[in-house]
Amino acid sequence: MSRSIDLAVIPGDGIGGEVVAQGLKVLTAVLPQDVKLESRSYDLGAKRWHATGETLPDGELESLRGHDAILLGAIGDPSVPSGVLERGLLLKLRFAFEHYINLRPSKLFPNTATPLAGRPDIDFVVVREGTEGPYTGNGGSLRTGTPAEVATEVSLNTAYGVERVVRDAYERAAARPRKKLTLVHKNNVLVHAGHLWKRIFDAVGTEYPQVTTDYLHVDAATIFFVTQPERFDVIVTDNLFGDILTDLAAAVTGGIGLAASGNINPTGAFPSMFEPVHGSAPDIAGQGKADPTATILSVALLLDHLGYGAEAARIEAAVAEDLAARSPGKSRTTDEIGDALAGRVSG
Amino acid sequence: MSRSIDLAVIPGDGIGGEVVAQGLKVLTAVLPQDVKLESRSYDLGAKRWHATGETLPDGELESLRGHDAILLGAIGDPSVPSGVLERGLLLKLRFAFEHYINLRPSKLFPNTATPLAGRPDIDFVVVREGTEGPYTGNGGSLRTGTPAEVATEVSLNTAYGVERVVRDAYERAAARPRKKLTLVHKNNVLVHAGHLWKRIFDAVGTEYPQVTTDYLHVDAATIFFVTQPERFDVIVTDNLFGDILTDLAAAVTGGIGLAASGNINPTGAFPSMFEPVHGSAPDIAGQGKADPTATILSVALLLDHLGYGAEAARIEAAVAEDLAARSPGKSRTTDEIGDALAGRVSG
Ligand SMILES: CC(C)[C@H](C(=O)O)[C@@H](O)C(=O)O
Ligand SMILES: CC(C)[C@H](C(=O)O)[C@@H](O)C(=O)O
Repeated sequence: MSRSIDLAVIPGDGIGGEVVAQGLKVLTAVLPQDVKLESRSYDLGAKRWHATGETLPDGELESLRGHDAILLGAIGDPSVPSGVLERGLLLKLRFAFEHYINLRPSKLFPNTATPLAGRPDIDFVVVREGTEGPYTGNGGSLRTGTPAEVATEVSLNTAYGVERVVRDAYERAAARPRKKLTLVHKNNVLVHAGHLWKRIFDAVGTEYPQVTTDYLHVDAATIFFVTQPERFDVIVTDNLFGDILTDLAAAVTGGIGLAASGNINPTGAFPSMFEPVHGSAPDIAGQGKADPTATILSVALLLDHLGYGAEAARIEAAVAEDLAARSPGKSRTTDEIGDALAGRVSG
Repeated sequence: MSRSIDLAVIPGDGIGGEVVAQGLKVLTAVLPQDVKLESRSYDLGAKRWHATGETLPDGELESLRGHDAILLGAIGDPSVPSGVLERGLLLKLRFAFEHYINLRPSKLFPNTATPLAGRPDIDFVVVREGTEGPYTGNGGSLRTGTPAEVATEVSLNTAYGVERVVRDAYERAAARPRKKLTLVHKNNVLVHAGHLWKRIFDAVGTEYPQVTTDYLHVDAATIFFVTQPERFDVIVTDNLFGDILTDLAAAVTGGIGLAASGNINPTGAFPSMFEPVHGSAPDIAGQGKADPTATILSVALLLDHLGYGAEAARIEAAVAEDLAARSPGKSRTTDEIGDALAGRVSG
């Protein structure tokens, strides 16, 4: 285990800076004294784009590459045309650094609001593919802007790309008590991509006889997310289905304010990037209203990835305790929540 | 209004035949004496495929074309490779008959179970595009079955196809009390298709100043489906997003047993097709356990489409009364539910 962490921080837009500050506060509080934490902040996002037209210059990408990990707040602003920052910055990082594991745990913590009646027991993790599928930016349009326009989007899927994420998901499932892995796709309609996923899912499965497997179409999966979420343990799925399912998962487990994610390159060839699932929420930016918990839980994923498992577990426990202890109805500022969690992890 | 209905019936697989029988029972009961109902049943689905290898022969397609409308039960069986019947029969019909409106109303009826706490007021309709997007069967695979496989799925979108469904959705929104239309897409990632949809959505919107509009990414839409479903009135969306969202909508409004759908060609150039959203449920087939309500509500959509608005409304009212009157916990057979509804509409 490295006894120093060299972190890149991308606060980004809207509430990004506020929540990242709390993430760093808790990170500092939880780390043992002898671990040297260095961090460098990168000014990327809407403001930079407005000022210079740049989303992610090559030099910056190269520089980011040298860090141990990246902590990102949120990217996106209504003043920037849809897609520019998402594709030019967020997705560019995921693709450039081969973040083929987009890890999104979903857990219903005690004393949190869920829209589901009867509070089911929810504790699953979605392993979303991060570098292929409909996210590759393939596609285009012809006769753009005319009544004869044709626009395409191409989902690209490779055995190479599917196998590495499926294998990772089996490893994660095998390491969990319930050892269950569900593949979600739509192989009755998207037959080419769907059959590739299913073939590899079944083939790799023979190496993990201890893991119980299951297949669901994405439409059916959304039903179970609200009627029987306790049936899920680990889910592996494509980039777009994973995007949709994890927002739904966040909603049923107490909201997007608690949903953490890791964009992981398990080989270590590139730095992995950790970010809350929520966006930049410009409507509440600068008001100290944003819940930093999702970012703080993303810091836990970051620590776990860098080999600080005990510290990651302390953050998770602190979040559970903090949620259990808070008085429902009483709202706290971004800073208050960060302070409370920093206090608990250093205590 | 034509005083005769010439109906094609495709019972299909699993519970398809059982639920369709109840749909026809209620249809017969609700129609005025002077309306002549003729129907012809088509033997299509898994059994036919096993026996002959055929999914939908040209002759049958031609013959179906001559009917006023089609009532379909359910298609699909685990004994048939995934995709064969879906693409060879169900989607073939939707595409051949230009069913560009896939209409899926979602309503939370009284006295029905919803997984959502607090029983929000849900009454919206999804206008799902039915003939384009990732459903066109474009795509393929290279080096299939090898570790070097590449598989693609191509989403095809045309101004022609998008405009006709968007216009229809505005018409439907304008005719409803709340007059609100939400476009759901993912235009920050699927920029070519997304921008085409948004451009046409905005352009057609200028012709409907009385309709309030709204845009949501598909991932965010799933959140609102469970946290604030009452915010939706009419939703227009692409084929795949509509598939996913309407299963989720069915789940939050009391389950797939109540979700009806119409595959509509509003021009009348081809017969429209009505079917429950649920599948063939082979696990409960032949046991009289299937809830025929979704099929019966699909018959209401069929009647409405053919100009029998009053009869359609009577079926809807009968379903609401029937659900309100039933004793929770007491399960009824497929036949009992059909009889109860036939009794109410003819009473
Ligand atoms: C902002 C957007 C590009 C991104 C995605 O679609 O992956 C977001 O929704 C997410 O889930 O991280
Ligand atoms: C069976 C399948 C092809 C179909 C679809 O994806 O459209 C179904 O899920 C539906 O929603 O009608």
